[in-house]
Amino acid sequence: MYFKKQIDLKKMKKKNNSKTEGTFFLKVKYLDIKTGYPWIIIINEKDGEKFGIRPGDELVVKWKEKQTEIAVDITKSLVKRGEVGLFSDITNRYKIKKGDLLELKLAGHAPSLKFIHKKLNRKKLSYKEMHALVSGIAKHRINDLELSFFIASAFDEKNFSKEEIYYLTKAISETGDMVKFGKVVADKHSIGGIPGNRVSPIIVSIVASCGITIPKTSSRAITSAAGTADTMEVLAPVSLSLEKIKKVVKKTNACLIWGGALRLAPADDRFIKITRRLGLEPYSKMVASIMSKQVATGINHLVIDMPIGPTAKISDKKDIKFVKDLFLYLAKRFNIKIKIVSQKTMGPIGKGVGPCLEARDVLRVLQQKENRPKDLEKKATLLSGYLLELVGKAKKGNGKKLALESLRSKNAFRKMQEIIKAQGGNPNIDSEELPLGKVTYKLKSVKNGLIRSIHNKNLNKICGLLGTPATKEAGIYLNKAIGEKVKKNDILCTFYTDSEERLILAKHALQKLELYEIL
Amino acid sequence: MYFKKQIDLKKMKKKNNSKTEGTFFLKVKYLDIKTGYPWIIIINEKDGEKFGIRPGDELVVKWKEKQTEIAVDITKSLVKRGEVGLFSDITNRYKIKKGDLLELKLAGHAPSLKFIHKKLNRKKLSYKEMHALVSGIAKHRINDLELSFFIASAFDEKNFSKEEIYYLTKAISETGDMVKFGKVVADKHSIGGIPGNRVSPIIVSIVASCGITIPKTSSRAITSAAGTADTMEVLAPVSLSLEKIKKVVKKTNACLIWGGALRLAPADDRFIKITRRLGLEPYSKMVASIMSKQVATGINHLVIDMPIGPTAKISDKKDIKFVKDLFLYLAKRFNIKIKIVSQKTMGPIGKGVGPCLEARDVLRVLQQKENRPKDLEKKATLLSGYLLELVGKAKKGNGKKLALESLRSKNAFRKMQEIIKAQGGNPNIDSEELPLGKVTYKLKSVKNGLIRSIHNKNLNKICGLLGTPATKEAGIYLNKAIGEKVKKNDILCTFYTDSEERLILAKHALQKLELYEIL
Repeated sequence: MYFKKQIDLKKMKKKNNSKTEGTFFLKVKYLDIKTGYPWIIIINEKDGEKFGIRPGDELVVKWKEKQTEIAVDITKSLVKRGEVGLFSDITNRYKIKKGDLLELKLAGHAPSLKFIHKKLNRKKLSYKEMHALVSGIAKHRINDLELSFFIASAFDEKNFSKEEIYYLTKAISETGDMVKFGKVVADKHSIGGIPGNRVSPIIVSIVASCGITIPKTSSRAITSAAGTADTMEVLAPVSLSLEKIKKVVKKTNACLIWGGALRLAPADDRFIKITRRLGLEPYSKMVASIMSKQVATGINHLVIDMPIGPTAKISDKKDIKFVKDLFLYLAKRFNIKIKIVSQKTMGPIGKGVGPCLEARDVLRVLQQKENRPKDLEKKATLLSGYLLELVGKAKKGNGKKLALESLRSKNAFRKMQEIIKAQGGNPNIDSEELPLGKVTYKLKSVKNGLIRSIHNKNLNKICGLLGTPATKEAGIYLNKAIGEKVKKNDILCTFYTDSEERLILAKHALQKLELYEIL
Repeated sequence: MYFKKQIDLKKMKKKNNSKTEGTFFLKVKYLDIKTGYPWIIIINEKDGEKFGIRPGDELVVKWKEKQTEIAVDITKSLVKRGEVGLFSDITNRYKIKKGDLLELKLAGHAPSLKFIHKKLNRKKLSYKEMHALVSGIAKHRINDLELSFFIASAFDEKNFSKEEIYYLTKAISETGDMVKFGKVVADKHSIGGIPGNRVSPIIVSIVASCGITIPKTSSRAITSAAGTADTMEVLAPVSLSLEKIKKVVKKTNACLIWGGALRLAPADDRFIKITRRLGLEPYSKMVASIMSKQVATGINHLVIDMPIGPTAKISDKKDIKFVKDLFLYLAKRFNIKIKIVSQKTMGPIGKGVGPCLEARDVLRVLQQKENRPKDLEKKATLLSGYLLELVGKAKKGNGKKLALESLRSKNAFRKMQEIIKAQGGNPNIDSEELPLGKVTYKLKSVKNGLIRSIHNKNLNKICGLLGTPATKEAGIYLNKAIGEKVKKNDILCTFYTDSEERLILAKHALQKLELYEIL
């Protein structure tokens, strides 16, 4: 009995005194604070003293059949004795009601923590041990700090055997939901610093139009102006239940949804969060991360887009070989046909930056408009081609041609319309009708010259000030691209936003953040 | 100008719009929540949208000449637009007033984070790099997750050269306050799982009574029933300012204070917090941690008490050698005369567990009472003896004798009285007058037999239920020790607490937590 609608304070008192080993019960109070990371609950100072709880202690919180570990804070007045204050992240995610009774207990170390100790001491883990550890991670029995130590132990490539990386990948996928969409299931995954947001919807449309199942789950923007999910959301809902996704894929061969709402490889979500904060990840973990999501969604034909270049994630030759070898090894263990595409890539692909602007780029290619970005079309058809060859839809060397035909015939566009409709959007769309912010600004060149580079980071920062990714209509259209010649007063790019205030912020930022390097 | 007493909302608005690169200003509101770890500030949802801040983001917070990094949470109603809610940890620690204006900015990665990346990639750090990194740690520019990665990188002994450990130790001490108490300054430090809380006050009294400077800083209990500081606090205040400590040491040759209130080796405090949560620490970091505090307090004669045994921290022969070698190497680099004492130790030393009970043990030895715990006296005189030999007060082999003379002559007791008086306590004390909890319980043996072991962890847990370390009078007196024969109904130990409720809790816990193993 972890959970009670009606509580009797006398009973509660009795409960709190009769329990051994520090288990106690408190009544839920809602606190209107959203904590992204980490979760926190609040108890009264007197209860803290009574139950021997100090600020920062981790508590095991149980309700219904669920349990999680949360750090605790102490208050003098915000919650009363006998109450536990819950932040809105928790109450939004779980159906815990005001006045409900929670079972609390000081958390000891998770039993699976010993496997992290083992890796820190450079010992090998069996599959059973790895599974127990990853399960502890997925269930939040292992906290972020402990998890950091596990990830850190993977930086030394010699500390993890290929076999262990296989165990890790398998455990990550098996500790979440597993889906099977069919016999032949394809996917394309990009790695490396260069945004590929606009390529995915085109590839999905092309490949699915050729009769191949390609269920695409993707992420929202974190530091960039738009993730694939943000861009697709301009056209259709992307937060679908697993049941709904299965229906969409059955009907259309494809989907373009946000993976974050699902429980696919949940341990990996935690890995990603931490390595993102660190700004560095072990290559072995990166490969395991990608492959675990593929395994969880039953992908068995996979094209990996691995750009090489100055801003790419991997540039060292030895590292490239290590990553390729590991992909090939894991693909073999999981029976996945794989093709790794390493292309030299110098800068952003496409013209628009921001959800609506990127969706315009996608539709312009799919609708085969005159003003479509050709570099985007080229990359999308190349990768689609490899995928079509991999699944056997095209002979070696003919994939790209088939992909282009799908575009030219508008089959790919019609497939996108089907997907949009199946996901609950309006399929009657045209690239030029997608809304853009009414407040605009044209950035002009201050001199004649040649565009040498476009500062990706600054581009993302200024897009953020303009309102992306939350404001779908905001962003920057790149009128001029790398390698183009410009004259003084030529328009370099156009800002779009929904408020004068934001435009002022973005224009001020321009004083410090250079966008175009013109020589 | 980071700080303003009076604010003008129009000016603030102007300020918030004219600043570039995401700097903004918000007015302080107090929130009555204590957050042990990590610190958090709260802003309104609308401001979050405006400034592009999401829950969990790290912000650089500036006021006066100070700055720190704090994670942010988002609220709909708890603070209004233009306000920032501060938890009481922050307002208690820093003098920030209600209505003050804080300068806030989304934190990028700390510049010194790249040195953590370097260690993860198994590169060597120069002293300059190590200093920059440790300084970032001391100033909280490096957050706990990032710090975990740094600590993790030290688990592989091959990843840090001895030279780098020296750099680390030096940087840890130099990024905090440095004190010089005199030409010859001694200390004794214990490592390893066996509590030595009661030994330190006796050693300090003996050594100081022989005219040697021995400024002892120690910690409060975390998982044990009492730290040295908790025990000493029964006799005198232990939270002294650095100025006050200097006066105490000048007057008495010694002090027995809580180090937590000082800024000695602040980076190390952060290391300790994290390795404690992990439940494991790299030996190199452990040695650096101990030595940095010695360097910061100008210690140049040091006895290390390194117990060996089943419950000791280090048991593997290879590890013992590694740790000893590192101590000797660092001592040489820092010009510290060192003696490492490795003694086999099987269980707790002394009879009392809990602040007052342990203080009684200490005083019984210093006052040379009949009922003094002999094992405690033996260990304290042994270690004092080594220290007296190290500083040249006694010839080799004569140190223990000199230490015993100091006890027998009551010189050591008079020294303790001096220290108590200088720290602001009442020197007219007697061991038997120290208060003990009025609510008691005698645990009796259920059978005849021999006491094989006493469960240290369970002992600490039950002491916690009885109220230690916050309730000084609470604890357990061990009437019977390891190796003693007992008959059925003999008293094994006595519980002391201040409330019937607590006693009930502790007695209930006994059903699950065994204290004595009797064969």
